[in-house]
Amino acid sequence: MTLRFALTPGEPAGIGPDLCLMMAQAAQPYPVIVISNIDMLRERATLLGLDVQLSSVNPQQLPDQPAPVNTLYVWDTPLYQPVAPGRLDEANAQHVLETLTRAGQGCLDGLFSAMITAPVHKGIINQAGVPFSGHTEFLQQLTDAPQVVMMLATHGLRVALVTTHLPLRDVADAVTAERIDSVTRILHRDLQDKFGIKNPHILVCGLNPHAGEDGHLGREELDVIIPALERLRQDGMNLTGPLPADTLFTPNNLKQCDAVLAMYHDQGLPVLKHKGFGAAVNITLGMPIIRTSVDHGTALDLAGTGNIDTGSLQIALVTAFQMAANK
Amino acid sequence: MTLRFALTPGEPAGIGPDLCLMMAQAAQPYPVIVISNIDMLRERATLLGLDVQLSSVNPQQLPDQPAPVNTLYVWDTPLYQPVAPGRLDEANAQHVLETLTRAGQGCLDGLFSAMITAPVHKGIINQAGVPFSGHTEFLQQLTDAPQVVMMLATHGLRVALVTTHLPLRDVADAVTAERIDSVTRILHRDLQDKFGIKNPHILVCGLNPHAGEDGHLGREELDVIIPALERLRQDGMNLTGPLPADTLFTPNNLKQCDAVLAMYHDQGLPVLKHKGFGAAVNITLGMPIIRTSVDHGTALDLAGTGNIDTGSLQIALVTAFQMAANK
Repeated sequence: MTLRFALTPGEPAGIGPDLCLMMAQAAQPYPVIVISNIDMLRERATLLGLDVQLSSVNPQQLPDQPAPVNTLYVWDTPLYQPVAPGRLDEANAQHVLETLTRAGQGCLDGLFSAMITAPVHKGIINQAGVPFSGHTEFLQQLTDAPQVVMMLATHGLRVALVTTHLPLRDVADAVTAERIDSVTRILHRDLQDKFGIKNPHILVCGLNPHAGEDGHLGREELDVIIPALERLRQDGMNLTGPLPADTLFTPNNLKQCDAVLAMYHDQGLPVLKHKGFGAAVNITLGMPIIRTSVDHGTALDLAGTGNIDTGSLQIALVTAFQMAANK
Repeated sequence: MTLRFALTPGEPAGIGPDLCLMMAQAAQPYPVIVISNIDMLRERATLLGLDVQLSSVNPQQLPDQPAPVNTLYVWDTPLYQPVAPGRLDEANAQHVLETLTRAGQGCLDGLFSAMITAPVHKGIINQAGVPFSGHTEFLQQLTDAPQVVMMLATHGLRVALVTTHLPLRDVADAVTAERIDSVTRILHRDLQDKFGIKNPHILVCGLNPHAGEDGHLGREELDVIIPALERLRQDGMNLTGPLPADTLFTPNNLKQCDAVLAMYHDQGLPVLKHKGFGAAVNITLGMPIIRTSVDHGTALDLAGTGNIDTGSLQIALVTAFQMAANK
């Protein structure tokens, strides 16, 4: 089957539409369908001074060839109010969700090989009366996935998280043997299935500083993490750890591994975003579809200025292309 | 006064003596006095095949000129047992502590402008019956400092910690307004006094992911950190934050600041040690003396092999030189 990709600009008042238009200036190896509103994109292109052809596509007959340079395929999706760059409007929350549904359902239905998402604004969707805690949870529900895993990647480093958006004081109790087990299995399987890595080597962080220093700095390594990893190793997984997080991210370690599993958000992501500044991609594992995302926010104040960096979108696209090709 | 420096090799069975001998192969801008045993150093030099002259110095009449290349000034300090590289011997724990006391007291007495420490082995000192939790605490007691702050530094980044070697589950409660206040004041003052920075700009991490996201991911930013920083700002400190730790370490942010204050060990140190791999220095702030240290361990298995990297010792020396010159 031809590979074909869905790209959602997210919040229309943010920089998502700008990113899509700027992306069209370079040739892509596959057809990429932007799911958005064609009039809004046209206005944004004018604002940015970009000469991009907007080619409306029919979901019953999606293109099999990449768009020419300076052409964007658009699956036109209605807005509820005109968009002013930088100004959130809760009337368009439903538009944003509709683009996500089209992309996600399209992946499930085989229209798309993967979806790439630009940032949404959670606050405005909730303000519109729709409980919404993020792309990930929305797509998890849409695709009926029992558990998902958040992974960020940049050149030479992938970091997956056992726990994600939790207050720090709740982290230690949330790192259970069951959670380590299920997260590691999803990470292992998706590295095999979606990244084409036969026997993934995963470095696992401890929870405590110095990985607990034999129990002197916390017992979770001895009581929870080490036994959990032992069971996973018996199932053939290639896991090293628990390792002290501060000395884990050395060039030699990173060269020898396919991913790092961090126990919590601020243990793994500062180093990833430092290393991959402007070129990091967020990948949701554990779903029956492939989804990658930029790693930045809506940047409302920059919408329409052109003063933005497409690095993260580029790596999100390339990562989705590679994952789909590996499948 | 002439600047003059004390260097302690730490655990004699580890790589500390090797580092001192290898350091002597390059010219130093100031006299550096190694506080160690001269016979042990001679044996280690033979083992390493290094032709280093060992020049015994008299503490009553310490040299004012740098040692020539391939010469090491040694303040000879007795051992209790001969040293076999790689083999810990609790009989020599007292020797190690004696070298630290000579260096620390020498700094207090004005013999030395600063001390630089190579790694000790905490376990063997405790095994010898001396309660010892690290260089920092030992020197804190020796110099009668009410509170000390751990800071690591590498080219282009300094990271100080509000809390250090605590189990992760104890961190949130340990981050009190009082502690943020005292740690930040020490950091601010030492950046002024020991680093010669007139109005230090400090970036402060939040405790929770995304710095709590307005209370959605934890309330410590709202309840503890923001009020504490506000009080410090009223005293004229230039503080930015609390910032999300994952997006704090961007090139632009780091260019604009003199130090980052992280709330806990694994929030700040993975990125520092990744960025500064092999060239990071540990600095103890808050004491009446200047102390820098390598950021690695004793590496017992590498003692006597010569197969080691002196990068961390070099930056520890240079940092001590600069700090003493700024004073």
